Amino acid sequence: MDLKQQMRLLAERSRDASRALARRATKKKNGDLLEMEDAIERNVATIKKANAKDIEAGRKAGLSSAMLDRLILTDRRIMEMAVGVRDVAALEDPVGKVISEWTRPNGMRIQKVRVPIGVILIIYESRPNVTADAACLCFKTGNAVILRGGSEAIHSNLAIAEAMNVPGLPPNSITVVPTTDRAAIDELLKLDDLINLCIPRGGEGLIRTVAEKSRIPVIKHYKGVCHVYVDRDADFDMAEKIVINAKCQRPGVCNAIETLLIDEKIADKFLPRMAKALTENNVELRGDERTRQLVSNASAATEDDWYAEYLDLILAVRVVKGVGEAVDHITKYGSAHSDAIVTGNKATAEKFLREVDSSSVFWNASTRLADGGQYGFGAEIGISTDKIHARGPMGLEELTSYKFVVVGDGQVRE
Amino acid sequence: MDLKQQMRLLAERSRDASRALARRATKKKNGDLLEMEDAIERNVATIKKANAKDIEAGRKAGLSSAMLDRLILTDRRIMEMAVGVRDVAALEDPVGKVISEWTRPNGMRIQKVRVPIGVILIIYESRPNVTADAACLCFKTGNAVILRGGSEAIHSNLAIAEAMNVPGLPPNSITVVPTTDRAAIDELLKLDDLINLCIPRGGEGLIRTVAEKSRIPVIKHYKGVCHVYVDRDADFDMAEKIVINAKCQRPGVCNAIETLLIDEKIADKFLPRMAKALTENNVELRGDERTRQLVSNASAATEDDWYAEYLDLILAVRVVKGVGEAVDHITKYGSAHSDAIVTGNKATAEKFLREVDSSSVFWNASTRLADGGQYGFGAEIGISTDKIHARGPMGLEELTSYKFVVVGDGQVRE
Repeated sequence: MDLKQQMRLLAERSRDASRALARRATKKKNGDLLEMEDAIERNVATIKKANAKDIEAGRKAGLSSAMLDRLILTDRRIMEMAVGVRDVAALEDPVGKVISEWTRPNGMRIQKVRVPIGVILIIYESRPNVTADAACLCFKTGNAVILRGGSEAIHSNLAIAEAMNVPGLPPNSITVVPTTDRAAIDELLKLDDLINLCIPRGGEGLIRTVAEKSRIPVIKHYKGVCHVYVDRDADFDMAEKIVINAKCQRPGVCNAIETLLIDEKIADKFLPRMAKALTENNVELRGDERTRQLVSNASAATEDDWYAEYLDLILAVRVVKGVGEAVDHITKYGSAHSDAIVTGNKATAEKFLREVDSSSVFWNASTRLADGGQYGFGAEIGISTDKIHARGPMGLEELTSYKFVVVGDGQVRE
Repeated sequence: MDLKQQMRLLAERSRDASRALARRATKKKNGDLLEMEDAIERNVATIKKANAKDIEAGRKAGLSSAMLDRLILTDRRIMEMAVGVRDVAALEDPVGKVISEWTRPNGMRIQKVRVPIGVILIIYESRPNVTADAACLCFKTGNAVILRGGSEAIHSNLAIAEAMNVPGLPPNSITVVPTTDRAAIDELLKLDDLINLCIPRGGEGLIRTVAEKSRIPVIKHYKGVCHVYVDRDADFDMAEKIVINAKCQRPGVCNAIETLLIDEKIADKFLPRMAKALTENNVELRGDERTRQLVSNASAATEDDWYAEYLDLILAVRVVKGVGEAVDHITKYGSAHSDAIVTGNKATAEKFLREVDSSSVFWNASTRLADGGQYGFGAEIGISTDKIHARGPMGLEELTSYKFVVVGDGQVRE
């Protein structure tokens, strides 16, 4: 059997599993998840042994220490994975939920009901805990999942999935692609008759490649070039707190800000104190001309800086002529991820919230709050930068589709 | 400027239009739609003149009379287009609607609000009235639209779009691709940084090609292999009425049935009368062995018949061992479009409605009712056979995305 046939067989088995999973009752799925938790805990030694193979191979292949650190599974990390699975058992099951219902003049009653999507392919890089996280979210929502992690984590991923496929589950509910051959991805991405959705998680390059090759619908998680705009009517203490949080609390993630926009009306008063606070937090500043007049330690920002996703303690700073120019800047340079305004003026805030076309827009709150957990979704499979199906933080509901259930008493089309 | 640059420029202009349209108030958009209606009515002569060019070219190219009939724009068809545009003005605007809202323990208030998708590319075949229908639905939902119709209708489509781009509209709100060069589609389908969604409408070949080439998310409208299953507990009069309607009322459309499944328990009583009624309605029958024992004029169905979308007065008929086998048949051979059960037994119906994974499932009603108009959506851009973003009949809501609007009073991530 060649790779193409292998991948087709694998996907067919997942499709069969998805049909059984779609009919599985919530209570049963929750019981399964608790068994998965147990199984992970019981298999710590096995998982660590598999992980040691990956670490060994990674060392030989010359992976950086940061990469190796992401790869390593300690007792604690494995226990955290298990707890994560248990937490998903406690979440509400969206499957079967009636989204809306109505009756037509001819008496037929229509319900729009949530159903699983079917088979979901998740392609991701490095960290093996994603295997457990993604698998249990797909399982909870009645979907079969095909997981394709980084080749450097193959043994760890296989061991985690083996533990999670507890007895009694529909066979092949959770499948890790058992080969590191890159061509396997190409073959899988052609199977639009068997796989319903692909979610790539990782760097921009991975996501672009997947989007380009895939015949399966893809939900993309691109970069976050996020902004805070501090308006003339802002409370300065609040603004400073929000900017520091949005930049410094965790600079390496997509909802951290990369550019600070300041209203010209308050630039001379606010910018020096803000720059001081940022500098105290080890943030390197790159400013436009007006910023550099007010902040001595800011270097000159180039056009590229406005587009940059630093993912680091670097911040581009620009002085703008009020909310209109702030919106224009965000529209031109931003990535439509998460953007915030700080202002005490309701009309100004409403203009910003309406006109900035980002997946999350904030008034007087930090962009770092753009997150499934913070929004109360209980779990998050990622933050979509697409506008189709799911936008922004994706929770369990976004892993479902729907169908129309129509009940009549003999209605026909006239 | 080569074709690639031309298409990029065209899409950039649509993107700019989409930004203006997203901010346009509902009242203003409704006024625009009424002006479009007027403009179509005022331009009947111009549109007919353009259409005459297409008809002339079509005759020379040897188009079939059916094709020419689909292409021709009579006064009546143009007036119907205009009325269709007016009807869309009267529909509720989904943009700005709050889908859900909640407050988090930290006090931040979250609203999930409907917003336009952005730029929508619609690729379709033949009938020029689709130009007006699709354009006004996209416009109403604040989206810019790029329309690429069949090359045989290019003059008609350009004339319709020219009439609809009434003064005062954001420039390039409605764009018909001004070339019949097929390579233009390939170029457009690469522009995932400018175009947010592609909806191909037409034959399976067109849709497959688009899905294969596109980097833009695609919502597909594939075929309908629909079924009625008549259960042992069915009311025979109701079953006969539903089957005749589902097969004969308009056999050439996707929600007409192609296969009839009959419970073995009632086959000898029900099938002969059903076959008689179908035959009286000029339906050719192709049956399995049991059917042929009971119905003398049924020919033998082959394996291919169970997969077939006849779109014609032909019906495949199979006797099954109750609802379980009916579900299995539909799962294996169906296209997950629209399927119905006729039964007086609630438990049997519920099993069917739950286990048949089709975009619409009916209990005691005709599959022909799977339609945006029949569901009360007011308008329909198509019937999606995908499970991502939109499934089944797509109305105005399905032409929108959403964003999270978060209001706080200084909240940061802890």
